[in-house]
Amino acid sequence: MVDVLPTISRVPGFQVAGVACGLKKNGALDFTLIVSDTPCTAAGVFTTNQVKAAPVLVDMERLKRNPDRIRAVAINAGCANACTGQQGIDNALQTARWVAERIGCAEDEVLVMSTGVIGTQLPMDKIRRGIDLAVESLSENNWETAARAIMTTDTRPKMASVNVATENGPYTVAGIAKGAGMIAPNMATMLGLLVTDAYQSPASLEVLLRQAADASFNRIVVDGDMSTNDTVLLLANGQVGVIEASAAALPDAVLSVSRKLAQNIVRDGEGATKFITVHITGAPDNETARIIANTIATSPLVKTAFFGNDANWGRIVAAAGRAGIPLQPEKLSLWITPGEEYGTRLDSLLLFEQGMPTHYSEQQAAAIMSKPAVSIYLDCGSMGNGCATVWTCDLSHEYVSINADYRS
Amino acid sequence: MVDVLPTISRVPGFQVAGVACGLKKNGALDFTLIVSDTPCTAAGVFTTNQVKAAPVLVDMERLKRNPDRIRAVAINAGCANACTGQQGIDNALQTARWVAERIGCAEDEVLVMSTGVIGTQLPMDKIRRGIDLAVESLSENNWETAARAIMTTDTRPKMASVNVATENGPYTVAGIAKGAGMIAPNMATMLGLLVTDAYQSPASLEVLLRQAADASFNRIVVDGDMSTNDTVLLLANGQVGVIEASAAALPDAVLSVSRKLAQNIVRDGEGATKFITVHITGAPDNETARIIANTIATSPLVKTAFFGNDANWGRIVAAAGRAGIPLQPEKLSLWITPGEEYGTRLDSLLLFEQGMPTHYSEQQAAAIMSKPAVSIYLDCGSMGNGCATVWTCDLSHEYVSINADYRS
Repeated sequence: MVDVLPTISRVPGFQVAGVACGLKKNGALDFTLIVSDTPCTAAGVFTTNQVKAAPVLVDMERLKRNPDRIRAVAINAGCANACTGQQGIDNALQTARWVAERIGCAEDEVLVMSTGVIGTQLPMDKIRRGIDLAVESLSENNWETAARAIMTTDTRPKMASVNVATENGPYTVAGIAKGAGMIAPNMATMLGLLVTDAYQSPASLEVLLRQAADASFNRIVVDGDMSTNDTVLLLANGQVGVIEASAAALPDAVLSVSRKLAQNIVRDGEGATKFITVHITGAPDNETARIIANTIATSPLVKTAFFGNDANWGRIVAAAGRAGIPLQPEKLSLWITPGEEYGTRLDSLLLFEQGMPTHYSEQQAAAIMSKPAVSIYLDCGSMGNGCATVWTCDLSHEYVSINADYRS
Repeated sequence: MVDVLPTISRVPGFQVAGVACGLKKNGALDFTLIVSDTPCTAAGVFTTNQVKAAPVLVDMERLKRNPDRIRAVAINAGCANACTGQQGIDNALQTARWVAERIGCAEDEVLVMSTGVIGTQLPMDKIRRGIDLAVESLSENNWETAARAIMTTDTRPKMASVNVATENGPYTVAGIAKGAGMIAPNMATMLGLLVTDAYQSPASLEVLLRQAADASFNRIVVDGDMSTNDTVLLLANGQVGVIEASAAALPDAVLSVSRKLAQNIVRDGEGATKFITVHITGAPDNETARIIANTIATSPLVKTAFFGNDANWGRIVAAAGRAGIPLQPEKLSLWITPGEEYGTRLDSLLLFEQGMPTHYSEQQAAAIMSKPAVSIYLDCGSMGNGCATVWTCDLSHEYVSINADYRS
């Protein structure tokens, strides 16, 4: 894996802005605009929820038709533009049209994303104001402001970037993301936008983004809910020239940025006090390993035990047992390790071996469980070579408070 | 549906006892014994968790071999006897053996159930003491004590009974149950024991119990977790004589008792402040309706919204959308109704119609949501005639507290 920076300095040819246009009641930043000086190839991955928000439907259609000439993405927070019928579609299209008029491109070269409360129409006067303010403040150096303006219940902005050296010169992959609740294995209320000045054909870009999302944004769990708006976009403006050959490192760079953003979403999960890595080995295959990992990561009993610093292997094993995957209980073994990296290292503690608890020290277990990051490693025995890693967080009082009060 | 009583007076031929033998640290009742004067036909439904506790494995085997001569059931709380290997099996068998010696029957005519913490061995000296104390206090009138002695995090005992009049005289179906957390669509940490003095062949009894459990215990959700110990047993001692013909009302009586017990489990769900009925119509078929209902009932975002008295139809619709069932979002309609019975009655409020929110009164919605029982009715449109009802509760601060502290 390459070095991932937690900031974004600039990505040649991309100008960004984050402004406040009144969508959020508290006056916080709520509108982001990203503009490329030249047309980009682009790809997107979208929510699999049957109820898709208007901007999702619009972007899916546009990327099918114009994946090689995207110029801008407009993102608003505060209103999800979901369950809004034909007027919601019209408002999404109008947003894109206004952006196109202001930056000088065709309206179908603009994509839109929305996040926030479901079921209310976009207040178009505020959107108009957001576009005007954003266009005026576009700059190559506004990435942190842009990342802040897409936040909802997030407590901090999420950014990551990678610089890749090639024989044709360096290029950058950078991304911003938002999301803190409704985070499930298939993306949930999360928005992500990645950009690069490398070049890649639309078809390759789509494969590359899908693979990266599958190993990052689709491997995180906050609460198992999946939203109507989930979208990750990747725009490539090719400003460094056509360097498809030397773009060999591009998948790795996109994956690295995606994974860092995804992990930051979990770290900032609603009410989260702990970052938890769930690693499964010895499953029949990778897909079954992933199902077992997701079942553990989604279990309220496992998540509350982590909140209580309780090395409750019984709940972990019981969650694995109900994942719907054939298991041989007498072959299960389970370790916990302090930190984000799972393992059977010296500082790992074997809690459960061949179907039964070990005589581990409760004191040592509690010491590991009280760390801000803890890893679970469950080996299913000799059933196969399937393995998977999923990241999640604990379930705290604060999660309940946030979500019992969200609309009020 | 027949009249269901919240108590059990007596069931002819069944003697029961609930005693304290030291399995619970606080000295509370923790051991229950149910003895039939004569051999019973019996059936059981068990957890589908791959990790099955020792008593589950023992009972499954015994019901396969002796479904027509069960004499007793011993139930301990405080220790689940799960993940305990061969010694756990040996201890379950020893428990049955001791009971058999004391009441005078063959050891394979005794069934066992356990609930409590996973991964510790049964303290057999205490079990022995429990058996001795229980045998001494057996009586036909001890049902409430018996129901209390199987509680773990339950706050109240769960009992129900039905008296059925037939031309051969009346008979009774009665049941006790426990369970408050780890309650998922497929039974979770719940134990149920039903008895009747009617007669039914083992094969019919099994079909009857399976159908009743499917429409009751398998329709409740507290937290989506499923335990290693779930068991529901049904014993029929036929004391009223062979009245198979007049036992036509038996399935209805068993279902009524099962449903009341199941609903009481949800009502006593860990930290629950609300009883929620989720009803789906217009799905492709009953099974898909049930999947949609379960997805809504398991969603942490839906459950926290209920805790916050928030008529957040957006989360309900989004949960339905991620259930993996094809839906036409523009045909969805959603009502809420105060009380346990869903409907489109005068006091129902239409929140969402044909894919979009209605102009409902937030005040009226909040008034309904603040009731101790609320029903959701989601119609999926004209896709089919599939319908399903599931019962659940909200997700509160108290749930997190209970489960963050359970082992300590």
